[in-house]
Amino acid sequence: MSGNSFGQTFKITTCGESHGGAVGVIIDGCPSGISITETEIQYELDRRKPGQSKITTPRAESDIIHILSGVFDGVTTGTPILLLAYNKDARSEDYDELKKVFRPSHADYTYLKKYGLRDYRGSGRASARETLARVASGAIAKKYLKKKLGIEIISYVEQVGKIKTDIDYKNVTINDVEANIIRCPDSSIANKMIDFIDEVKQSGDSIGGVIKCIIKNVPSGLGEPVFDKLHADLGKAMLSINAVKGFEIGSGFAGVELLGSVHNDPFMLVDNKVRTKTNHAGGILGGISNGEDIYFRVAFKSVSTINKLQSTLNLNNEEVELRAEGRHDPCVLPRAVPIVDAMAALVVIDHYLRQNSYA
Amino acid sequence: MSGNSFGQTFKITTCGESHGGAVGVIIDGCPSGISITETEIQYELDRRKPGQSKITTPRAESDIIHILSGVFDGVTTGTPILLLAYNKDARSEDYDELKKVFRPSHADYTYLKKYGLRDYRGSGRASARETLARVASGAIAKKYLKKKLGIEIISYVEQVGKIKTDIDYKNVTINDVEANIIRCPDSSIANKMIDFIDEVKQSGDSIGGVIKCIIKNVPSGLGEPVFDKLHADLGKAMLSINAVKGFEIGSGFAGVELLGSVHNDPFMLVDNKVRTKTNHAGGILGGISNGEDIYFRVAFKSVSTINKLQSTLNLNNEEVELRAEGRHDPCVLPRAVPIVDAMAALVVIDHYLRQNSYA
Amino acid sequence: MSGNSFGQTFKITTCGESHGGAVGVIIDGCPSGISITETEIQYELDRRKPGQSKITTPRAESDIIHILSGVFDGVTTGTPILLLAYNKDARSEDYDELKKVFRPSHADYTYLKKYGLRDYRGSGRASARETLARVASGAIAKKYLKKKLGIEIISYVEQVGKIKTDIDYKNVTINDVEANIIRCPDSSIANKMIDFIDEVKQSGDSIGGVIKCIIKNVPSGLGEPVFDKLHADLGKAMLSINAVKGFEIGSGFAGVELLGSVHNDPFMLVDNKVRTKTNHAGGILGGISNGEDIYFRVAFKSVSTINKLQSTLNLNNEEVELRAEGRHDPCVLPRAVPIVDAMAALVVIDHYLRQNSYA
Amino acid sequence: MSGNSFGQTFKITTCGESHGGAVGVIIDGCPSGISITETEIQYELDRRKPGQSKITTPRAESDIIHILSGVFDGVTTGTPILLLAYNKDARSEDYDELKKVFRPSHADYTYLKKYGLRDYRGSGRASARETLARVASGAIAKKYLKKKLGIEIISYVEQVGKIKTDIDYKNVTINDVEANIIRCPDSSIANKMIDFIDEVKQSGDSIGGVIKCIIKNVPSGLGEPVFDKLHADLGKAMLSINAVKGFEIGSGFAGVELLGSVHNDPFMLVDNKVRTKTNHAGGILGGISNGEDIYFRVAFKSVSTINKLQSTLNLNNEEVELRAEGRHDPCVLPRAVPIVDAMAALVVIDHYLRQNSYA
Repeated sequence: MSGNSFGQTFKITTCGESHGGAVGVIIDGCPSGISITETEIQYELDRRKPGQSKITTPRAESDIIHILSGVFDGVTTGTPILLLAYNKDARSEDYDELKKVFRPSHADYTYLKKYGLRDYRGSGRASARETLARVASGAIAKKYLKKKLGIEIISYVEQVGKIKTDIDYKNVTINDVEANIIRCPDSSIANKMIDFIDEVKQSGDSIGGVIKCIIKNVPSGLGEPVFDKLHADLGKAMLSINAVKGFEIGSGFAGVELLGSVHNDPFMLVDNKVRTKTNHAGGILGGISNGEDIYFRVAFKSVSTINKLQSTLNLNNEEVELRAEGRHDPCVLPRAVPIVDAMAALVVIDHYLRQNSYA
Repeated sequence: MSGNSFGQTFKITTCGESHGGAVGVIIDGCPSGISITETEIQYELDRRKPGQSKITTPRAESDIIHILSGVFDGVTTGTPILLLAYNKDARSEDYDELKKVFRPSHADYTYLKKYGLRDYRGSGRASARETLARVASGAIAKKYLKKKLGIEIISYVEQVGKIKTDIDYKNVTINDVEANIIRCPDSSIANKMIDFIDEVKQSGDSIGGVIKCIIKNVPSGLGEPVFDKLHADLGKAMLSINAVKGFEIGSGFAGVELLGSVHNDPFMLVDNKVRTKTNHAGGILGGISNGEDIYFRVAFKSVSTINKLQSTLNLNNEEVELRAEGRHDPCVLPRAVPIVDAMAALVVIDHYLRQNSYA
Repeated sequence: MSGNSFGQTFKITTCGESHGGAVGVIIDGCPSGISITETEIQYELDRRKPGQSKITTPRAESDIIHILSGVFDGVTTGTPILLLAYNKDARSEDYDELKKVFRPSHADYTYLKKYGLRDYRGSGRASARETLARVASGAIAKKYLKKKLGIEIISYVEQVGKIKTDIDYKNVTINDVEANIIRCPDSSIANKMIDFIDEVKQSGDSIGGVIKCIIKNVPSGLGEPVFDKLHADLGKAMLSINAVKGFEIGSGFAGVELLGSVHNDPFMLVDNKVRTKTNHAGGILGGISNGEDIYFRVAFKSVSTINKLQSTLNLNNEEVELRAEGRHDPCVLPRAVPIVDAMAALVVIDHYLRQNSYA
Repeated sequence: MSGNSFGQTFKITTCGESHGGAVGVIIDGCPSGISITETEIQYELDRRKPGQSKITTPRAESDIIHILSGVFDGVTTGTPILLLAYNKDARSEDYDELKKVFRPSHADYTYLKKYGLRDYRGSGRASARETLARVASGAIAKKYLKKKLGIEIISYVEQVGKIKTDIDYKNVTINDVEANIIRCPDSSIANKMIDFIDEVKQSGDSIGGVIKCIIKNVPSGLGEPVFDKLHADLGKAMLSINAVKGFEIGSGFAGVELLGSVHNDPFMLVDNKVRTKTNHAGGILGGISNGEDIYFRVAFKSVSTINKLQSTLNLNNEEVELRAEGRHDPCVLPRAVPIVDAMAALVVIDHYLRQNSYA
């Protein structure tokens, strides 16, 4: 039983490896009547694409999205939507080196153990290129949520290495995020992050960081106890992204130190609406949205591919030395922002449609 | 589409609320031929039950487990297993107070918004009593994993409030964990935790903490990219437990500060086995187990029920003052240890059986 | 991956074997706010129960239904509903004979091959006693459909052996069906059926037949192409019932002989509603309900348990002679009517809630 | 919740409508290590393609299959396989006529009711062109079953209109089936069928028929009680094919007339193997394969598109006259044979891998 589908109502099934014919996704369960164009999807893909700035990998991948089914006259028909981006031709010979070696902290070894063989070209299915399909399908989800429910999803880079902004998420706009190449809405911190990444890149190394995501205007009532709690599905969605090592919602790990009397969010009436005075919960109570802002943090480790000499094993279990020659991202964070956006959108639309099913 | 099932091969579906007739679970997909007794399941339930020590709620709940199907002559038959614990009779009148008010940080408000009505007796389905079904089914999973694959799952309390042990998880045994009532294997820290919880309890307050879980001897190859990665499913499992606000695997949030050259875990040969020198990954690469110890941390917030006066709203949106009269846990951590164990077991057995399906 | 769940939104998971502790079902996804009592469920169970007439098995099984969760103050809460009927104590020794032999056309042999062991008491999980859980959960579905949408489900016995009624289904009422013990609304044919079954019973044999089911007032739009077509799910539901060997919708097998110009159902306007002149389709076009009556036929083979001497093999592959001693149904048809009703209700409510999920 | 996926372990998700960009399928869960080429898949597609003989539609559709992911060096990698056939360009204007009218017995009306809008070009998603994706994915399943388990699947046309062969299925080979354009292994009956279809075609009409399918060498133990019984899933698979109105396994509808003492299949020992003397069961007992031949019959109604004048309604509910101008199949049976093959293969591989999951 493989695991390439996500969602139950707005269900995506993705396919494609780094160097096959294409990366794609079928969306099954997208409501009919949503107007969507390739251009709108392309906008999100361009936020994710390689080569967009000096701090991302210089690889030039086109990533042109094609809608091949499920949309008629610019509108979704309710039937499955196939989105596809063809891969550039690549010579398999370029990967002869990787064929025989287990790169440290890559999935080479585990894919071989799991499947008995592996597509060694550019990490195969374990390549982050796979996230393209998430962003493409997430773009449709995002549009639907925005248009139908006014839901806004804003992710940004909060931390790179030890450099961290303490900006209040409530004031961050999507324009602030897109104002710089690191996608940190705090411009002075952003510059420090960029400089640091540049430095890390020069040394052939890589670095991790944290992305914060805010989802505004989610109606109360979304989330399915006791297992498919809204934050549990958000957590799974985020942890399924390459390089993610942690997820926390609301007060998160720091919140464990707070006494109940401090952590509890008292209800109150604001403009005749039930609200909470504080929001340590992060917008979710008992696994169900309460109408407050949903916010969470996602930890990304440093990229495994580095331009430094590393020792490892080859297929014959011999110790070898390895230096990656390929161009890589010194820090995935700026390109990961639209991926976090997309996965958040996919979880929220799925739970919105699930909630709908109750008569 | 409700969300009361977990797992795809070893699939559990739970039912029961705080004050209905029973809390139960059907396990569908348990392999045949496993010997299991009510006593073995009861052992795990007793680790979770209320009233087991001075730092847990003094409520006396019996939680006697019954096997009602799927087991014949002491052995599983491959057909669905029904496990049930009957609830004690409770007078609904005892809950008249809670009927009209939204307790802060409880799920009263969101359940009402989601379902249009709610069972207000003892939190209804949102009660932590629901986790009883998880522990009962997890007990069977744990036994299977231990007997068939030698897999060991050890969870313990690492942190309560700001009190934290830095004990090396590699040396912790299940006996160390069970040596004290807080289930922290570091005895001096354990005493500090207990004293602190006692103090919190006296003041009518509550406190959170962190549980660490280690899973040893997991064979390499478990986990289903790209969405059902092993740690993504572990994360979802943990985040679905009441009061959990965060999950991190391996290096987690702290790891984002490490350079790739430091974070990468080089492969090496030990006793003719492929191992990694370090284990920042936490035993999982590309979503698939690599044979190293899997370890992760789970953040629990303080319990919402406190014996302090709180302001909130009632059903008429009027501001009211509330003081919980019921007996509650000042800190859920010690009772949450077997729940974390159980959910970890449920994830691992599910992925083991999923991996099996490949011919 | 076991198969004891049915439905995706109104999802039932059943458990229990002939001689375990209980037969039960968890319904996950039942909408909140439906009033339901044990009495209402019991009514349907009583239509299915053994010993209800001279042409059913004289075994006296109580089959008292208990609601153990998910209902509060007589109303569903949206949380999982556990329905349970406890089994009567049975001495395992009574089944020593069956322990060592494969009864012809029973599932003894295949269960052993599949699971490596088997619960030989009264057919274990393969017992038709399992259908009790279907009828119990179907009773809630039926009530919902009737109350919310005015949907009526009427099944009746159309054929026993070669005795067949050609009554027009449009005129059949539930009272006609319940007017006699064979549940055939054509009273003169009913008497012939009863006499024939009586005769078959005297000879220690068994006989099959056909049940016709009509579902009225289904709104147009239900059914999920291309695999979960409404009639495909109805077909699966029926074929999953013990002893069922065939399913046909609308014109069915006889319809293959009709030319397209005859088989096509022209649209026309009746009382300002879009209707079809004929209904060879059986109320479903392209897998989606069109608002006409849905009708289908279900073929039940004769019961495998007979009071005649049969040759077969035992566990040691030795040829042995076998004569069933237990009391059995000479014809399952009258007791299968409420099962067909229930499964039809479960399919329709599931598709209604699935259709709802589209925003 | 849409329904474009089939299978749980070998799970296919299909997409594409008659006149979109492409028809495709993602297979998730295909075991790794299976050698497969586009040529092998194309062979099955060519059996299904239009224009292959004088009794199929003269439409020339290319249906060239492309493998776009999941296969590396000619071998499956265990990752999702994307198969795609691009559609020929078609001018939407050609369908202006169909835009405004509900064709009798087509899905025009129900799609509009379900989705609120519809892709009216060539039946959109309801087009039988969708089955291309089934045949393509089924080709991989068929190869796997044949190579790994020696399973053979042979479908053939048993009946067209009232013309029927009573050939014994046991003697039919795939060569016999492919020996003529109607795919009936009884050559004299085949000729009668062909002549009759020719006649029907000349009159602008259409006709239905029955396909019989045999699955040989299925190991005992496949099938998942109590809902996912092997024949229940076969039934659903067949009923999900366009134009199918009935399914019967083993003795089927005719079998209901047999007494239990006749219908029961006694076990006996043949060549030291447990076999049954007769096979009224059709190779499945209690929903689980018993090692005997599985055989079933599938009823296809006549094609809805005919070249005769029909009365129907348009979008404004006005009565109109309609004569289909497009080229159509006078009888789908010969082209449906590979579709039945494919769906049978998909069910069997799915259940084989499900059974595998039990440790």
